[in-house]
Amino acid sequence: MKRLHEFGVHYRITISMQEPPRDQRRFRLDLAYDGRAYLGWQSQPGGGTVQDTLQAAVRGICDGTRSVHGAGRTDTGVSALGQVAHFDVPDSWKMDAGAWQRALNANLPPTIRVMRCAEVPLSFHSRFSAIKKVYEYRIVTDEVLPPLLHKLAWHQARLGSDRDMIPILQHYVGSHDFRAFSAKRHDGRDEGRDTVRTIYEADAETWEEGGGIILRFCGNGFLYRMVRFLVGTAVYAVRGRISIHEIDTLLRGGDPEAKAPYCAPADGLRLVSVCYNTD
Amino acid sequence: MKRLHEFGVHYRITISMQEPPRDQRRFRLDLAYDGRAYLGWQSQPGGGTVQDTLQAAVRGICDGTRSVHGAGRTDTGVSALGQVAHFDVPDSWKMDAGAWQRALNANLPPTIRVMRCAEVPLSFHSRFSAIKKVYEYRIVTDEVLPPLLHKLAWHQARLGSDRDMIPILQHYVGSHDFRAFSAKRHDGRDEGRDTVRTIYEADAETWEEGGGIILRFCGNGFLYRMVRFLVGTAVYAVRGRISIHEIDTLLRGGDPEAKAPYCAPADGLRLVSVCYNTD
Repeated sequence: MKRLHEFGVHYRITISMQEPPRDQRRFRLDLAYDGRAYLGWQSQPGGGTVQDTLQAAVRGICDGTRSVHGAGRTDTGVSALGQVAHFDVPDSWKMDAGAWQRALNANLPPTIRVMRCAEVPLSFHSRFSAIKKVYEYRIVTDEVLPPLLHKLAWHQARLGSDRDMIPILQHYVGSHDFRAFSAKRHDGRDEGRDTVRTIYEADAETWEEGGGIILRFCGNGFLYRMVRFLVGTAVYAVRGRISIHEIDTLLRGGDPEAKAPYCAPADGLRLVSVCYNTD
Repeated sequence: MKRLHEFGVHYRITISMQEPPRDQRRFRLDLAYDGRAYLGWQSQPGGGTVQDTLQAAVRGICDGTRSVHGAGRTDTGVSALGQVAHFDVPDSWKMDAGAWQRALNANLPPTIRVMRCAEVPLSFHSRFSAIKKVYEYRIVTDEVLPPLLHKLAWHQARLGSDRDMIPILQHYVGSHDFRAFSAKRHDGRDEGRDTVRTIYEADAETWEEGGGIILRFCGNGFLYRMVRFLVGTAVYAVRGRISIHEIDTLLRGGDPEAKAPYCAPADGLRLVSVCYNTD
């Protein structure tokens, strides 16, 4: 496997980043959630998202808090084992990280858990400080999808093994313009943004318990629905419906109208971890 | 590990066993289900059980079928990876096992799946022909219960490891009167029944993914709630709330009023497999 420094690591400079307030304390949350119970991460006017549920729990404990910021938005149905978020509370609020973890877990539904909580410097930002994200995607290739994996894996009977998948995934590794492997967000927030990302690792392994394959993607960042397009396209390639040559062409990103052929369902996707320089 | 023939294998002779009808064909189903979605296996007047749901699906395909018989009743909330059941259809009904599997899976909710289907001789009975059953019980010992394991594991933070559990479980192995490790059924069907069962294997292993332990029980049969009493009592012993000496006394079964101290919740329990001489 290649290491970080072998790629030109891609930095984003975000001018909207605000100066952190000085009379606040900041807490980092390492979160796990069952994506089947939520309309994704991102707060919505009607609620029902992970961020809405978390913010309500934090505000229920300390009225002076505003927002819970996440490392990235996960879609409806996407689960997380290690999403990272942060929030600020007034300096005068004397709860430590352990007390926050216990209080939040007591106030949250069992489908969201604070796995760890730590006080962090105000310079830490769950999104802007992140240097690497890891996603996994589960595919059941056996004839029947086991009931306990319903909505937790994509069912692709008789797809083949990890050995069929690995040579295709290797084409994704490196810095590419992944525009063809992304969807436009409805709110237009991505308009005009740079679509070059670096994938450090794209691999597959046999999934004994599920009767299938687990795919693993590690990169400096992922566009909207990018992992799902990468998975859907790789499955198309294993099935012979797109060639490696066509995938390479999509990865060169020359044609603004070109589009990856398939976006895999949210079911199989899990945000495994977000990495920081301090970890 | 000890082998079957080292124990005096315990036979039950059941005089209610009916002569199988000769103008019928019998199919065996190997079933998996998510116990969180059902009120247990056993049919109830109000429905909502696995057996009710299966019978409705079978009758929806072939009107001439009566009952789907299961190898054993699982409680509300208990999942199965390898429950076995059978049903009869009139000889004139010309669907083969593969067609039955596809048709049933198309008519069942995704929380019940027919993993395999086979035509079997009329002498095969899912319950009376069974010679061995295997159950697993999952305990999360980490501080926080991961959301994807909600209602799929018992949360016992800081319980210890498989090494603490194994010496206790070894006391269960062998033929014992497990009356103290069972509950009375509400319908009184067990009144006066023999309560001696043979456990061939009772073991524990580290559960990396869940952050805990998986316990495994293999025996010629289990009384109502017996696995849950065995697990609850073993956890009590690891916590120092019951001694090995007291457990041995319970296993001798001399005192009809004696009772195992704790019945573990249904959440962590899975019926893994049912074994037959023909397997």
